[in-house]
Amino acid sequence: MKGLKGALVFAQSGGPTSVINSSAAGVFLEGLHSDAITAVYGAAHGIKGILNEEMYDIGKEDEKELLLLKNTPSSAMGSVRYKLKDAAVDDTDYKRLLEVFKKYDVRYFFYNGGNDSMDTCNKISKYMAKSGYDMNVIGVPKTIDNDLFGTDHCPGFASAAKFIATTIMEINLDAKVYDTGMVCIIEAMGRNAGWLTASAALANAKGYGADLIYLPEIAFDVDKFVEDVKGVLAKNNNKCIVCLSEGIHDKDGVLIGEALGKAGARDSFGHAQLGGVAANLANIIKEKTGVKTRAVELSLMQRCAAHCASKTDIEETFGAGKAAVKAAVSGETDKMVCYARKAGDKYECEYKLLPLELAANTEKTVPLEWITNNGTGISDEFVKYALPLIQGDPDVAKEDGLPRFARLKKVLVEKR
Amino acid sequence: MKGLKGALVFAQSGGPTSVINSSAAGVFLEGLHSDAITAVYGAAHGIKGILNEEMYDIGKEDEKELLLLKNTPSSAMGSVRYKLKDAAVDDTDYKRLLEVFKKYDVRYFFYNGGNDSMDTCNKISKYMAKSGYDMNVIGVPKTIDNDLFGTDHCPGFASAAKFIATTIMEINLDAKVYDTGMVCIIEAMGRNAGWLTASAALANAKGYGADLIYLPEIAFDVDKFVEDVKGVLAKNNNKCIVCLSEGIHDKDGVLIGEALGKAGARDSFGHAQLGGVAANLANIIKEKTGVKTRAVELSLMQRCAAHCASKTDIEETFGAGKAAVKAAVSGETDKMVCYARKAGDKYECEYKLLPLELAANTEKTVPLEWITNNGTGISDEFVKYALPLIQGDPDVAKEDGLPRFARLKKVLVEKR
Repeated sequence: MKGLKGALVFAQSGGPTSVINSSAAGVFLEGLHSDAITAVYGAAHGIKGILNEEMYDIGKEDEKELLLLKNTPSSAMGSVRYKLKDAAVDDTDYKRLLEVFKKYDVRYFFYNGGNDSMDTCNKISKYMAKSGYDMNVIGVPKTIDNDLFGTDHCPGFASAAKFIATTIMEINLDAKVYDTGMVCIIEAMGRNAGWLTASAALANAKGYGADLIYLPEIAFDVDKFVEDVKGVLAKNNNKCIVCLSEGIHDKDGVLIGEALGKAGARDSFGHAQLGGVAANLANIIKEKTGVKTRAVELSLMQRCAAHCASKTDIEETFGAGKAAVKAAVSGETDKMVCYARKAGDKYECEYKLLPLELAANTEKTVPLEWITNNGTGISDEFVKYALPLIQGDPDVAKEDGLPRFARLKKVLVEKR
Repeated sequence: MKGLKGALVFAQSGGPTSVINSSAAGVFLEGLHSDAITAVYGAAHGIKGILNEEMYDIGKEDEKELLLLKNTPSSAMGSVRYKLKDAAVDDTDYKRLLEVFKKYDVRYFFYNGGNDSMDTCNKISKYMAKSGYDMNVIGVPKTIDNDLFGTDHCPGFASAAKFIATTIMEINLDAKVYDTGMVCIIEAMGRNAGWLTASAALANAKGYGADLIYLPEIAFDVDKFVEDVKGVLAKNNNKCIVCLSEGIHDKDGVLIGEALGKAGARDSFGHAQLGGVAANLANIIKEKTGVKTRAVELSLMQRCAAHCASKTDIEETFGAGKAAVKAAVSGETDKMVCYARKAGDKYECEYKLLPLELAANTEKTVPLEWITNNGTGISDEFVKYALPLIQGDPDVAKEDGLPRFARLKKVLVEKR
């Protein structure tokens, strides 16, 4: 609703990205400069920080440090993986949230996260509306996975893609340095959507990419994989670079990583904890071809390598935070900020709003028509889509040759 | 000897670094501009390229592309792991080398590598001298391991150290983002010398480092390790970041990675092929503490991440190549270029020459007095030593937001 005056709470949730705090900076700075907003709080560890009344008073921070958040990776407020129950089943948490919101006169709530977080944000928004508590709720997207529905791309994806493409180019040269055979298998994150793995195609476009790219969008067959690798080795001087998603699975949906012997721990959302599939497949290739293999997991680096972020991503992500506050102050609620790419040859992106229920829990995967070469390649359409997003290098503040991250005071708001 | 006129051959050997080609650029450009040098050749895949008469004519390359080698990771000429026998036992290879050197009138030979390569270089130098063939032979050091004797530091180390420190800072933030427990174990390269792992201390100096650092210089005990981690978890909000070398071993010299079940493949020098010790230790910690763990191998990235190189390293490495040619042209032979740090507070480095037999096969490890906290910490002396080396960011040429590596024509010299 329009004309609301009150405090703002911003919270971060789910796996971090290397630019996630750029949205935090956008929300905080826009909030601090808005007449409608009486106080700016950052919840410690997502929704839990509100439930526990653990919130940082952002008004006590230096603006210079808040700006340094643009190049500080990983959720500065702390993150959480906490799934709210349906209010119809158990409304305990919702009642408590309402209680805290009332106590601190919170009228603006921003939740920064991916699919699951947009679901949480949607549930909170609907509950508060139903309870008659006037509050504007806006979701700020964030995910390296790039799998959110309704947005051209997701804040954080481009920086991960840039790190992956850059690293594959470097590894390509390194892995081919000897005159002996080598199969190098690079594993990127991605459970169901292969956007990150597809980024290898950006390196391919420069001539230093992956010969074979496997996304979770297409069922993976280990025997076919071995034949694919043998084919590349035969025509490529006994060298083969592979990039694949942690989430590749067989035609029955069984994860290859799990099937090959990786114990399947699950996180609190019930998602399998993946990783290690490259190492398992490298062992199989070594056994079947006799060629030396190397498995490389891009691991946490792909989501925290702020030193190799995309400036375009940083600025768009910062803008998404500001756009969220502007939208809320102008009366919008129950929406997620999203990116809309303008038509035309020159890349331009604008912010739009999408109803939260559309954003929640819907995964956007890589279009099947972009997957080529019998499930081992990525088309130029992807490169055309992703290339504008990775442009520009970050202005990383340095101290003694190393990154100078934001130093926040993190003064807790006094409990009421 | 002085006054030699003839062709120059430069070859690269062993594992690459992210700045190894900066020395190649230095040798090539200095060679192309020297009156004493009649032709500049780059041997394909190290010493093998000479044995097989596979050499690239560097005179056919654009100088602009040769300069781009300064930021192109991984041996541009191709590398090799090939151990020459002692000439007294079998001089077949030496005779063949002499034959090729004579055929192409090679009077200047430069070998770029680490310990094993300096041994090869030394053997060749001694054989040619004994054979009465006039040739000036200079070793150009290169190794991320920083373990060469007689030089303050090694070309390539600082860039790897900078990548490791930067990455640990980023991972530190990422691994601590949840309010649940987390042990993150980061594995760096280093068989016997812990210089790379010690670089974690650079991140510690910035406040985002590793709580526990284990080098191969000190015997590793798994039970003590578990207790060390438990101690950090208890006082550190259930979070612990560990950085350790792939080469950590027990008091009897048995590699922890091998002891914990890693099959021990060996390379052609008889060195064990390491890796995977972090993953094995993470499993043990998970079992003994119940805390979530994450193992991160810095893998090939630590030796090829040219995008995160040290400008100081790039320029010193370039200068080492030029210094090698200057020394050879002035009549020096049978030496390795090394770095000497000038006394005084301001960091300055100059080039000196060291007899090759002193450089060959001698490993310089981290001084034991720099290892603190009962084998889990690194002293400020190391930080003081390493910090000047990682200064400055590389001027990476970019194309579409990705690195623009040198594009060499690689025209093979016609066989004679």
